[in-house]
Amino acid sequence: MRHLTEQSLEALAIGAALLGTGGGGDPYIGKLMARQAIQDNGPITVIDTEELQDTAVCAMSAVMGAPTVLVEKLPGGGEQLAALTALEKHINKKITHIICAEIGGMNSTLPIVTAARTGLPLVDCDAMGRAFPEIQMSTPTLSGIQASPIALADDKGNSVVIDGVDNHWTERLARSITIEMGAAAFIALFVQTGKQVKESMIPNSLRLAESIGEAIIEARAQHSDPIHAALTEIDGFRIFKGKITDVERRTVAGFARGSLTAAGLERNAGETLEVEFQNENLIAAVSGRTVATVPDLIAIMDSETGEPITTEELRYGLRIQVIAAPCHPKWRSTEGLRLVGPRYFGYDTDYVPVEQLVASIGRETR
Amino acid sequence: MRHLTEQSLEALAIGAALLGTGGGGDPYIGKLMARQAIQDNGPITVIDTEELQDTAVCAMSAVMGAPTVLVEKLPGGGEQLAALTALEKHINKKITHIICAEIGGMNSTLPIVTAARTGLPLVDCDAMGRAFPEIQMSTPTLSGIQASPIALADDKGNSVVIDGVDNHWTERLARSITIEMGAAAFIALFVQTGKQVKESMIPNSLRLAESIGEAIIEARAQHSDPIHAALTEIDGFRIFKGKITDVERRTVAGFARGSLTAAGLERNAGETLEVEFQNENLIAAVSGRTVATVPDLIAIMDSETGEPITTEELRYGLRIQVIAAPCHPKWRSTEGLRLVGPRYFGYDTDYVPVEQLVASIGRETR
Repeated sequence: MRHLTEQSLEALAIGAALLGTGGGGDPYIGKLMARQAIQDNGPITVIDTEELQDTAVCAMSAVMGAPTVLVEKLPGGGEQLAALTALEKHINKKITHIICAEIGGMNSTLPIVTAARTGLPLVDCDAMGRAFPEIQMSTPTLSGIQASPIALADDKGNSVVIDGVDNHWTERLARSITIEMGAAAFIALFVQTGKQVKESMIPNSLRLAESIGEAIIEARAQHSDPIHAALTEIDGFRIFKGKITDVERRTVAGFARGSLTAAGLERNAGETLEVEFQNENLIAAVSGRTVATVPDLIAIMDSETGEPITTEELRYGLRIQVIAAPCHPKWRSTEGLRLVGPRYFGYDTDYVPVEQLVASIGRETR
Repeated sequence: MRHLTEQSLEALAIGAALLGTGGGGDPYIGKLMARQAIQDNGPITVIDTEELQDTAVCAMSAVMGAPTVLVEKLPGGGEQLAALTALEKHINKKITHIICAEIGGMNSTLPIVTAARTGLPLVDCDAMGRAFPEIQMSTPTLSGIQASPIALADDKGNSVVIDGVDNHWTERLARSITIEMGAAAFIALFVQTGKQVKESMIPNSLRLAESIGEAIIEARAQHSDPIHAALTEIDGFRIFKGKITDVERRTVAGFARGSLTAAGLERNAGETLEVEFQNENLIAAVSGRTVATVPDLIAIMDSETGEPITTEELRYGLRIQVIAAPCHPKWRSTEGLRLVGPRYFGYDTDYVPVEQLVASIGRETR
């Protein structure tokens, strides 16, 4: 058991932005909300999954939809509690612990707000080990755990509880409500016992995000390479150094799809990078050769500061470095790749682990 | 208290088709379902609102969306019970009585199926005295009664419970779920005490539909005018006799919108009729002069048989008679007209009661 303080948030938000692989929204807003909640209610209690009692009643607290909308109407926190209350009423049980849906982007810090406002402990784990756009893309799905009942709440006072037949249907129905609620909804979902959480979730996610952030902050302070420091934390690879020459974006079915092109600098001089994204970065290719694909992590960092850059922030002329890292082993199973592999996202390519792709290039990558 | 038998269904379906004013779907399907349910479970008990105990727990059982979809996949009745069960679980009370949402179209006969399958009594009343396309267009809205919690269920096993802040929001959220569920969903909503039902609902709706149907059937048997017989039951007016010369249809936001043009015959020779519809018939004009508008009832009948014709069945060359009748007085209030008057449907015209419009024409109308 430990306490998460205002100070921990800084590092956590940077690490979560990297693990968000371009998606999941700006963790800055989540950080502001979490800081306010901790200022109002005091530090929150974080426990490891091993400390969790088997009979604990855990639920995820998250935001669904376009996190960009939240920048325009900063939520007060009441919506998260409304979703949690609606879920508790539906299952006729009190939630005892809060868990994270994803460690990437805003959904890494929003559960902290919920924990602070409810006084409930937060369990150090998440269901993705990164960010993904859809509900069923969660490790509990691999364990046969239902995302529903899921409760949704908005800032107007509406609430909805969905019992989907499977996690794909739950995603589909919740998505339509989210759009109707104004493109963003607060949700509570994936009720699990402590025993289930230990089996289905990815442990130590908050700690990992904090370590990444601390490594980056410390490297900056010591004028050493923050990206190298981050790579050490995630067993990652430096894929490309260059300058953005083009960003193409289009909004398709509520997702921010597009691609990024960059021209190589230094050791990548003369080469071209292309990254395809759908909220998250999904495929990276250097001079036409695929070097990393989803579910492995692909993050774009500011060359100087080592700050992770979300897809919304990509713009012409930015000097970047692209890094990649292995995803959690659960995603590399047949069922895992069926849920979140490149083919699910519409790409006609099989998944090859990033370490194999990088080795096949045969050169220094860290 | 009385029993509704297979025999009563024939007349009820014809009357409900007339009161459906073109919308609410083909009552034929609802009749088939109700007949099957009564054959399986025996006659259902119908009680008048006056017989209802003040403490009774009443809920509407209905179908939302495009009733045409149900023709393609005839529901087994399980979806209605799933919606009712989800609602009961949410309110943590047993429903004791079933009530009708609308007496027009399929939703007049579907509650019979629910009553038969659950063994619960059906209360002789409805919330519209006709058919309307949206949830908030219900007399309980005028009494400040919430449509939510509303439960929705589909044939795949999904169920959703919505708590809307008001009946407009409940409609909006339920509509998006209905579309996602495949354009039709079974719903349970408007939980009311017996006391509230007596105040908020329109009584004797089933009896009215049956009387209209019986009058039409009897007139046919006696080779007298079935339309005249129907008009007597509803205090209605014969607006036009003619032949359809054009039907224009377009699907806008999930509703069947369009217009009908007919050339006059007999006493209407040389005149032109135009009817605008959005699921239901909303405005009727003869040679450019408005003769009836929503919420008053406008029904199109087959000239020979007196069979009410739904908007889907309108086609070139059909010989028709158009009739109109006063709506329930509740709809003629300021708040009623705000909910269902011509301006709500986007027409730039004030509501004038049909009997005044018809009197201003100054000729025999029955």
